Amino acid sequence: MKFIDLNSDMGESYGPYTMGNDAALLEIVTSANVACGFHAGDPLVMRDTVTKALKENVGIGAHPGFMDLWGFGRRQIPGQSPADIEQIVAYQIGALQAVTKLHGGRVTHFKAHGALGNMAAVDEGLSQAIVNAVKAVDPDMIFVIPPYSLTERVAERAGLRVAREIFADRAYDESGYLLSRKLPGAVIHDPEIAARRVLDMIETNHITTVTGTRLPVKIDSICVHGDSSEALEMAAAVKHCLQANGWTLQSLTERKGL
Amino acid sequence: MKFIDLNSDMGESYGPYTMGNDAALLEIVTSANVACGFHAGDPLVMRDTVTKALKENVGIGAHPGFMDLWGFGRRQIPGQSPADIEQIVAYQIGALQAVTKLHGGRVTHFKAHGALGNMAAVDEGLSQAIVNAVKAVDPDMIFVIPPYSLTERVAERAGLRVAREIFADRAYDESGYLLSRKLPGAVIHDPEIAARRVLDMIETNHITTVTGTRLPVKIDSICVHGDSSEALEMAAAVKHCLQANGWTLQSLTERKGL
Amino acid sequence: MKFIDLNSDMGESYGPYTMGNDAALLEIVTSANVACGFHAGDPLVMRDTVTKALKENVGIGAHPGFMDLWGFGRRQIPGQSPADIEQIVAYQIGALQAVTKLHGGRVTHFKAHGALGNMAAVDEGLSQAIVNAVKAVDPDMIFVIPPYSLTERVAERAGLRVAREIFADRAYDESGYLLSRKLPGAVIHDPEIAARRVLDMIETNHITTVTGTRLPVKIDSICVHGDSSEALEMAAAVKHCLQANGWTLQSLTERKGL
Amino acid sequence: MKFIDLNSDMGESYGPYTMGNDAALLEIVTSANVACGFHAGDPLVMRDTVTKALKENVGIGAHPGFMDLWGFGRRQIPGQSPADIEQIVAYQIGALQAVTKLHGGRVTHFKAHGALGNMAAVDEGLSQAIVNAVKAVDPDMIFVIPPYSLTERVAERAGLRVAREIFADRAYDESGYLLSRKLPGAVIHDPEIAARRVLDMIETNHITTVTGTRLPVKIDSICVHGDSSEALEMAAAVKHCLQANGWTLQSLTERKGL
Repeated sequence: MKFIDLNSDMGESYGPYTMGNDAALLEIVTSANVACGFHAGDPLVMRDTVTKALKENVGIGAHPGFMDLWGFGRRQIPGQSPADIEQIVAYQIGALQAVTKLHGGRVTHFKAHGALGNMAAVDEGLSQAIVNAVKAVDPDMIFVIPPYSLTERVAERAGLRVAREIFADRAYDESGYLLSRKLPGAVIHDPEIAARRVLDMIETNHITTVTGTRLPVKIDSICVHGDSSEALEMAAAVKHCLQANGWTLQSLTERKGL
Repeated sequence: MKFIDLNSDMGESYGPYTMGNDAALLEIVTSANVACGFHAGDPLVMRDTVTKALKENVGIGAHPGFMDLWGFGRRQIPGQSPADIEQIVAYQIGALQAVTKLHGGRVTHFKAHGALGNMAAVDEGLSQAIVNAVKAVDPDMIFVIPPYSLTERVAERAGLRVAREIFADRAYDESGYLLSRKLPGAVIHDPEIAARRVLDMIETNHITTVTGTRLPVKIDSICVHGDSSEALEMAAAVKHCLQANGWTLQSLTERKGL
Repeated sequence: MKFIDLNSDMGESYGPYTMGNDAALLEIVTSANVACGFHAGDPLVMRDTVTKALKENVGIGAHPGFMDLWGFGRRQIPGQSPADIEQIVAYQIGALQAVTKLHGGRVTHFKAHGALGNMAAVDEGLSQAIVNAVKAVDPDMIFVIPPYSLTERVAERAGLRVAREIFADRAYDESGYLLSRKLPGAVIHDPEIAARRVLDMIETNHITTVTGTRLPVKIDSICVHGDSSEALEMAAAVKHCLQANGWTLQSLTERKGL
Repeated sequence: MKFIDLNSDMGESYGPYTMGNDAALLEIVTSANVACGFHAGDPLVMRDTVTKALKENVGIGAHPGFMDLWGFGRRQIPGQSPADIEQIVAYQIGALQAVTKLHGGRVTHFKAHGALGNMAAVDEGLSQAIVNAVKAVDPDMIFVIPPYSLTERVAERAGLRVAREIFADRAYDESGYLLSRKLPGAVIHDPEIAARRVLDMIETNHITTVTGTRLPVKIDSICVHGDSSEALEMAAAVKHCLQANGWTLQSLTERKGL
């Protein structure tokens, strides 16, 4: 049998503000990356997200970001040393672990959010800081990483269990990174095209770059979004296409051999 | 031998702002109640506090409060249900657990901060919420409580290990509660008077109220402060007096039978 | 001719979070109460709201609330003296004045938000504090108030220009206050019923309470909402009904004699 | 007669946190740059600072920074366009204007804080944004700027009244910029050396760089600090030296010809 995970960022609401459609997404995906109260989310939103995820049997992951609600964790905030980042990441993992434990669940994977993840991908010191935090807090957590990043190398070296993800709706450049959103063709809008493209990549174990180069990679998870009805439609289309082609969706938590 | 714990609130700095003199206090007390980033503290301050506490062999406790940096967690913020409080408390315990684990330590006690603790002391639902969070996240944590509060009753009923604390610098009313700061004589300023008073209370296992009534209580810990040079002086005076009278200072963590 | 103002709260988005549908509302109402960055809004949201309001010729009002983004200014935060409230209100008015001036406009009215307004309505000291701030910062601002409140009395005594508003979708109790949302019938959901009701009140200059009592009041403005498609529909229905019955919608700013 | 202004950053406390010694500084300086609630300060701290400044007849200036309390406005937060900065700056000026007006005073100068000022000094677009905000909100405000910055050029071009300041405790590089704190000799610690150095610069109208080069500049104000007892001592030493050499200290507000 062929297994793949579908993950999505979730729990990004805050107080009176709603972001995304978590209820609908949780019926589609197998892993939820839950915001931990720094770039989005709060203890009550975390509770809502975690309890819904548990009900839908969706894997729960910590999704820490910078302390930057106003910028949604997308701004590359300078002046934070790797040692600082270790604390910031550990804090957020622990917070989610406790809220999840309160509801009888367990945090089983980790994925860095926005600017934190992007900065780490090209900075070995930051990658090491994140890896240190994950390893110290729970060495059994599965670390979801972008392939071809420094984070991948550092996480493997540290002996962490890693899961490589691709994005359903994004093009890749020649280095295996996400193509900048500023460039034409960076975002894929057609659900069917995205679904076929994802299927091709996981069946052949490679990333197809924007120029057609094929970079080998063992893909463990596909990242989809749910912040608009178009995004939800794409997530559903990807899921349907994979299932129609014999793939079983399974959370990272359930994966053997990661 | 006679054992007693000396605890103090700590880690209340934030970013560029310094609060208190944690370094000096950590050389006096045996238990540190560490702010968890809601009413005070941040991940970096928590790291500094935890690593200093570990170095001084001081017990580390979670000290959660309301999400209210501006009001320092002293304002009784309405509109938070017991279920909400459970998440808020669990979140903060977990955050400190993870930061502490990152530095090789362990969170071994719990004490509610400011308005959160004060509201719970007279509200069974809130007490139950805090107790639920503590029990779910780590049932082995020692729960530091004010005697004669509803929190004491609820924590005992839940089977938690409780430690009863008295304040070195505060007078008590007839109910065994802290006398309101607005009333004359509520705060004791003389270090020697405070020290003798504390000694008397722990030697005779009672609280002396403002009118001279003696309320029986098994005292496990004494709360001292360090936010001014006078406070530090009092903490040192209390410690000296206790040691001079044959008491051994020992963190709650090390106490058998709690 | 018969003139009436239609006002609505606006500019309540924050960073990545969108609240309400300001663009649609601004085509319906004649006065916008703009959040000032404490309970909602931020400088960029204020800019967007103000520039749209200027384009639609909608009157711009300051709508300050408590520093409580998480609670959206709806929680009655204790521990703030009237003197404190003066600063908090002045700060927010000034902030909006400057952002509005940057875009060539002027803040012409004032309305307190949520818990700030509700607490002041029944507290003369708080009402006085708000009145002091308004009077000191711009004595020409029109102060939008709920009739039969202490705020009304204090504002009139101070010689401020006041505008009395009624809510299109809320029932009133015997004191002329809004009926608590917890009571049955507190919220009116049917647009046509709301519209007829509003028309009746402004034509006869009275509030009809939940028991049918009629309290006399000179009504200057009607408050409508835009946070859902139902709310927008009601706002449009109220506007249409008023216009169909010979009323001209005019912002408070343009009203003579206020 | 020879006139010079002594300015200092102030009002940087926040809620329970105290920063600096404003009361002592206000007896030394002639102009106060007041934090406006984004990188430091809050409405109550602003009230305290403004009322003390008015009592001491010290000129009141707006001192806006990035919305970054945790980083104290010292972090160069990316992702903010010049148009965004305009709103952020205008907001803060207006907030201080209103709080000051509430206490019978007036904001008469402006100085950008930390990373905001540093980024603008080398970025014409940001300088223009700040200048636009100042000019739109109050074109009569005196704009305190570092000489040899792009901000100076843009402010002059816009016809603003500018005041050039030098730092009493900092060395300058060959471009007339502050020497990076990371380089040796960047900070001057000896009060007497600082005082003589300042005297020399204002008497000869030049900046002496770290290598001894003399760059011509008309100096209008000297920036001193008050965040430690050493800083206060230096501020007093500078003041004493200037007065002993025939200089009259006078706030920018009172200066003719700026």
